[in-house]
Amino acid sequence: MSQTIARSILLNARPEGWPKEGDFRMAAQTLPDPGPGEVLLQSLWLSLDPYMRGRMNAGASYAPGVELGAPLPCEAVARVLKSADPGFAPGDIVVVHDFWRDHMLRRGRDLRKLDPVLAPVQTALGVMGMPGLTAYAGLRHIGKPRAGETVVVAAASGAVGALVGQIAKLGGARVVGVAGGAEKCGYVARDLGFDACIDRHDPQMAGQLAAACPNGIDVYFELVGGAVWSAVLPLLNPFARVPVCGTIAGYNDMGPPLGPDQSPALMRSVLTKSLTLRGFIVSEFAVDAPEFRDQMGQWLAAGQVRYREDVRAGLDQMIPAFVAMLAGRNFGKTLIHLAD
Amino acid sequence: MSQTIARSILLNARPEGWPKEGDFRMAAQTLPDPGPGEVLLQSLWLSLDPYMRGRMNAGASYAPGVELGAPLPCEAVARVLKSADPGFAPGDIVVVHDFWRDHMLRRGRDLRKLDPVLAPVQTALGVMGMPGLTAYAGLRHIGKPRAGETVVVAAASGAVGALVGQIAKLGGARVVGVAGGAEKCGYVARDLGFDACIDRHDPQMAGQLAAACPNGIDVYFELVGGAVWSAVLPLLNPFARVPVCGTIAGYNDMGPPLGPDQSPALMRSVLTKSLTLRGFIVSEFAVDAPEFRDQMGQWLAAGQVRYREDVRAGLDQMIPAFVAMLAGRNFGKTLIHLAD
Repeated sequence: MSQTIARSILLNARPEGWPKEGDFRMAAQTLPDPGPGEVLLQSLWLSLDPYMRGRMNAGASYAPGVELGAPLPCEAVARVLKSADPGFAPGDIVVVHDFWRDHMLRRGRDLRKLDPVLAPVQTALGVMGMPGLTAYAGLRHIGKPRAGETVVVAAASGAVGALVGQIAKLGGARVVGVAGGAEKCGYVARDLGFDACIDRHDPQMAGQLAAACPNGIDVYFELVGGAVWSAVLPLLNPFARVPVCGTIAGYNDMGPPLGPDQSPALMRSVLTKSLTLRGFIVSEFAVDAPEFRDQMGQWLAAGQVRYREDVRAGLDQMIPAFVAMLAGRNFGKTLIHLAD
Repeated sequence: MSQTIARSILLNARPEGWPKEGDFRMAAQTLPDPGPGEVLLQSLWLSLDPYMRGRMNAGASYAPGVELGAPLPCEAVARVLKSADPGFAPGDIVVVHDFWRDHMLRRGRDLRKLDPVLAPVQTALGVMGMPGLTAYAGLRHIGKPRAGETVVVAAASGAVGALVGQIAKLGGARVVGVAGGAEKCGYVARDLGFDACIDRHDPQMAGQLAAACPNGIDVYFELVGGAVWSAVLPLLNPFARVPVCGTIAGYNDMGPPLGPDQSPALMRSVLTKSLTLRGFIVSEFAVDAPEFRDQMGQWLAAGQVRYREDVRAGLDQMIPAFVAMLAGRNFGKTLIHLAD
């Protein structure tokens, strides 16, 4: 019987505002060999996603907050080292909802096997995974863009936003992105084929967005909140749909912004424009996952959807990479690479 | 050829805050006999509804604002005096989307004939009319309460709120109202059969609402906004539905309330609780009107739905009755009675 050392990142303190290194600590744990039905795994890739910031708080976000001293959740792509589940053999590559750690023992039934020939395995954390399904299902069930309608998405070079725009474009919509800086905007408009991309750092952002949406906005896929949402709201058309999937601009706020209170005006816009605002978490649409993977696989194979990854190596890069992502300093899907 | 004098109330100035008498003026106009296809009508009942406040502003609400010097819109029940449309005869009673005035010339095709034997004709302005369809369609298409779920509605003794609660109750929901004062609350709980009714003037309103909704709130039918909405939001369950049909508490506000700005927190609640906020105007669901009238007629005949009217007599009562309604000093559907 051999032993494996698993290193984990645990929540040490609840971040006040922006997370800092001292809010986390590294721990090591010895893992035994797998028991019946279990599999010993080595993490190859870990996913960093904005929703994790909410889980660091005490109050319930989507789910109850992570306990102090507990590991932080993430999706992981891992390699089977040892298996006591007949469905898995050493060398198999799987995706699993796990934690910020480099090795783990899991039950085989919690794993989904990946075919490394079909696509790079880490795409199971991005374009072929949770962010991809978020974009696909949010558009399909809530946004419902029709050909010729205008779809706006912010964080347009990010893991979800880039796919929202490309999927909507494949459906015949006019697609306008918002992203931070000229480099990202160039990528979104040129490489991803959006009709336009507005720089959120530009003081004229609201006016430029209005100019890029001459027929108003029919679908706004909300990932960001803040100034982009304020610029979008007056441009929404009657019966516009707003899938609300994130509000990253405010995740590190320590209290409500100064007044005046815009919430009555927001409700009045909902009323007078017959808007639909609908929050959702991707797990609601888990049933769509197989169909989504088929469709996205076809789009990728045909070169109709492109994606970009922002990769850092090593567990010790988790915290800086996470903070950089919350600040919009990532460029593409944020991944931590632990082993080949 | 005879002539008829029509008296109208025109918009004289855009109200700043609460409407006052000087914002309106009376005008008289001579109406000729009806031409081919036309009908001369005498208004018997005029309807006052909160949405009219928005039409007095310059900016678009549901529809563009009323022009200065133009008459104000309302639904009316009227009697045919003379007809040059073969479908109508003197003495017929009709309902028509018209204006604040006592006589009018209209095309026959704009009128819907009422049967005075089926129900008191003024119910075409309330329980059998626009407010009734608003409650019915808003629940049917947006609120979608299931048996055992909790439905909350404010202005619960008013034209729409009273019907929202009774219709939801007929569908098996638990129904909690909010109304202004002990008399209205007693009526809502006792006469209308709501499970509970909370007094919005009570300083403990939020706590009482929470106590009356031990399983949270699944549907909040929004007519009011303001403090009631603030009390409802924390109680909404995951996947709660909020048909947004009015925000009367803010209709006379001259600017946004003081801060802090609660709109980011509102969007975060939409996200983390997977809420649906959906604004609507009853005209969207006009296709449901025949089915609605059949169903409501049956409920009324069976004594399963009750209603209450707040009647004032004479065109000169329009303004004070309208202001009283906006302030919640009406008790039931607000009607102006002009002739028997």
